[in-house]
Amino acid sequence: MSVLFADNLRFFDTTLRDGEQTPGVSLNPEQKFEIASRLSDIGIDVIEAGSAAASDGEREAIRRIAEAGLKAEICTYVRALREDIDYAADLGADSVHLVIPVSDLHITKKLRKNRDQVAAMAYDAVEYAKGRGLIVELSGEDASRADQKFLHEIFSGGVERGADRLCFCDTVGLLTPEKTAEYIPPLSAIAPLSIHCHDDLGFALANTMAALKAGAGCAHVTINGLGERAGNTPFEEVVMALEVLYGYRTRIVEEKIYPLASLVSRHTGVALAVNKAIVGEMAFTHESGIHAHGVMREPSTYESVKPEMVGRKRRIVLGKHSGTASVEAALHEMNYNADEKQVKEIVKRVKQLGDEGKRVTDADLMAVADAVLSIECKPVIKMRQFTATSGSHMIPTASVTLVVNGQEMTGAATGDGPVDAAMEVLRKCVSDVADIRLEEYHVDAISGGTDALVEVTVRLSKDGKIITSRGARTDIIMASVEAMIAGMNRLLRDRT
Amino acid sequence: MSVLFADNLRFFDTTLRDGEQTPGVSLNPEQKFEIASRLSDIGIDVIEAGSAAASDGEREAIRRIAEAGLKAEICTYVRALREDIDYAADLGADSVHLVIPVSDLHITKKLRKNRDQVAAMAYDAVEYAKGRGLIVELSGEDASRADQKFLHEIFSGGVERGADRLCFCDTVGLLTPEKTAEYIPPLSAIAPLSIHCHDDLGFALANTMAALKAGAGCAHVTINGLGERAGNTPFEEVVMALEVLYGYRTRIVEEKIYPLASLVSRHTGVALAVNKAIVGEMAFTHESGIHAHGVMREPSTYESVKPEMVGRKRRIVLGKHSGTASVEAALHEMNYNADEKQVKEIVKRVKQLGDEGKRVTDADLMAVADAVLSIECKPVIKMRQFTATSGSHMIPTASVTLVVNGQEMTGAATGDGPVDAAMEVLRKCVSDVADIRLEEYHVDAISGGTDALVEVTVRLSKDGKIITSRGARTDIIMASVEAMIAGMNRLLRDRT
Repeated sequence: MSVLFADNLRFFDTTLRDGEQTPGVSLNPEQKFEIASRLSDIGIDVIEAGSAAASDGEREAIRRIAEAGLKAEICTYVRALREDIDYAADLGADSVHLVIPVSDLHITKKLRKNRDQVAAMAYDAVEYAKGRGLIVELSGEDASRADQKFLHEIFSGGVERGADRLCFCDTVGLLTPEKTAEYIPPLSAIAPLSIHCHDDLGFALANTMAALKAGAGCAHVTINGLGERAGNTPFEEVVMALEVLYGYRTRIVEEKIYPLASLVSRHTGVALAVNKAIVGEMAFTHESGIHAHGVMREPSTYESVKPEMVGRKRRIVLGKHSGTASVEAALHEMNYNADEKQVKEIVKRVKQLGDEGKRVTDADLMAVADAVLSIECKPVIKMRQFTATSGSHMIPTASVTLVVNGQEMTGAATGDGPVDAAMEVLRKCVSDVADIRLEEYHVDAISGGTDALVEVTVRLSKDGKIITSRGARTDIIMASVEAMIAGMNRLLRDRT
Repeated sequence: MSVLFADNLRFFDTTLRDGEQTPGVSLNPEQKFEIASRLSDIGIDVIEAGSAAASDGEREAIRRIAEAGLKAEICTYVRALREDIDYAADLGADSVHLVIPVSDLHITKKLRKNRDQVAAMAYDAVEYAKGRGLIVELSGEDASRADQKFLHEIFSGGVERGADRLCFCDTVGLLTPEKTAEYIPPLSAIAPLSIHCHDDLGFALANTMAALKAGAGCAHVTINGLGERAGNTPFEEVVMALEVLYGYRTRIVEEKIYPLASLVSRHTGVALAVNKAIVGEMAFTHESGIHAHGVMREPSTYESVKPEMVGRKRRIVLGKHSGTASVEAALHEMNYNADEKQVKEIVKRVKQLGDEGKRVTDADLMAVADAVLSIECKPVIKMRQFTATSGSHMIPTASVTLVVNGQEMTGAATGDGPVDAAMEVLRKCVSDVADIRLEEYHVDAISGGTDALVEVTVRLSKDGKIITSRGARTDIIMASVEAMIAGMNRLLRDRT
């Protein structure tokens, strides 16, 4: 079906401009540079590095990216102002994304000008930018609400004056695939055309794909669909939709998709929805009994994309929908030998935990299995006392008294905060017995009040064996300690 | 354009079944009942209350929902097993969502059966369910990868045996709008047809809309697009796309959309992406200077949906992209009178904060404005010392010594955790001076290690005036105290 699309579809990434306009997001020049390098590496054709007029830090970032000699074309956002274009040229950008409002609403209400004035501004800016040696992508803002005849005129006029490429911006996400199919062909006949969509009504991807089908040769995207309001077209979804649904071979290095998505999420501080397509935490995680069963027999039954293809792994987790097959698989991995009747009972108890609204961690499953198999679970570690102190004039300090293998030991440690001190003192106290490392510490976002239940999940490792464990308390420190001790006990009595 | 769709499009909500299959999500019967009531209130036609075979808690929830006499039809998920159907009938459900694998992949790899066996199972189950007085929606699992001829046969055979409705399940999100337009018409000619889509490649909404255009009369949806892996078609997006993009009047009470989305997010513990369409935190928040400017002049320039329409409000926030207009608006709201030159300087400093990667809170803006306007900012509250203790054998306790209006006072308080105790002692110590309430306490998810920077945002109110403030430290307790004191100082010297 790849005949639907032009050869050599291009990707124009605007994570560093539209993406950074997400309220609350601000990247420093160092972070912007790192993201730009990775965008170039993955195969993005054009990187919109920022809007030079925004701030000094923005200009520093653009200059650094432009000077780095990346493979991608480096572009900056400019208004139809000579001052903006001068910034772009002086900073060493290859191209400008020259944005002109084209709907009467934007022309009259926002700019308080008329069509002729806007056309004159656009033409002057195109000529000026060409004079400064820049590649020009002339972009019609709010094009989906514009008089398409006027849009055609201003685009044609811009190209006559030297614009190299055009861009149709669906600024507020009001396009439909039907309108896209109608609007794009006459415009893409003028010059190479990009499509730039917003997701206010959830149609960014669908409209982008419709435009590519209708003759647009380049998709404007952001990593993770970042962007103002509901965000822009997600890069990863366009790539995988083209590859998987339409059999179109892009030049993107797909297995770098997930590492890049994680980097952007970390640098921007914008968490991904757990169920975001392709890159969300749960996109390749299976819980439901019947589905996990199918996946274990044949992954393609419940997977449209192989997780490895985008740099990820499949996960099976347990919960109230877990069936016998997934519980058996987990028990096997943990070296339990349970007969059919015992497995049935374990499944029943796992479901009960689920009914209580709990996530079932490895430690939970082991506790259930121990009980059912009547394995006496004498915890290796018992906690006698724990104290943590923090304050304005002190170093966060924690002390603990543990009984490890019958031997009492008391220790103390300081840390970057009371939780950090707590983790450190626990690690120290068991270090004689085992080298247990805290691989990951996670707290779900806390919202509402300060008396909310805080759920802490830790990933601990010992000699390559990894276990997850959970603590839930209104006190974040005690929840962390609870998770650590439960996990350490499981690792220490592991029967491998 | 509403001629594209059938009259009286219906909504079948599966938040309580597919949505709850999101790994890690587990709702207790009480929460399920509350969500079901709200689904009925908002105008959902059919509520899939759960899968009766899953667990005891699940059955309790289904019974309670079925007995409540809600306006919506109450449905349960069943496999083609008499045992499942008996559960549904005995619990008092109105209907069953009877799911049969129809692709050869699912039939052979998952069930290890052949087409004839599956058809026989399906027909027997349909007849049995009809015999038990249930409305039957016969659903083809993995229909998008099925031989469409076989699908047509099994659907026709099911209807001959009494099935009332049919459902096309795109189980792994492999449909495209093109395939949808081809597959749906012959099937919807057999009986009323639902469309059930998954979002693995980001096409759930587009495919659902394409199916409704092609003759399907009912959309399967979940609130917030919850569901396994990448989730299901989001209810709120289908409703608003129909209303706003296609001018189709649904019978949904739209202004209840956001309250319902929030409830589901709270009960499931699945945070919404900040840039989720319609219901994400930032969906109606504007930062970018030029955009905020446009929105202030005329909201429709940068909004496709009026926020009030879905029960929300518009927000303007500041950051490095903020232009003069949005900073001026914020200053005006805070009763600062700055001249043009001063505003310019304030904008510059706000951008600097942004360049450093900081979110600009109300307290930040006020600090900048004070400095620029040379308003001497003598903090009302100074902290001399703060201590918090927590542990296994003690009640979390915090003490603080503050100088409030020149007067030193020391206080102590206990709480549900050290942060809670800290907030309480601060509130108590200033209570003589002002009644300051902590309206909201938020901590972004903490990931990585225990030495990560923790960013705490608080919303404080005093006599109806609300302010946001931030603290950022590696110590969550100190970050919380920092945020509180900065915010309290701003509220107390507020010049209103």
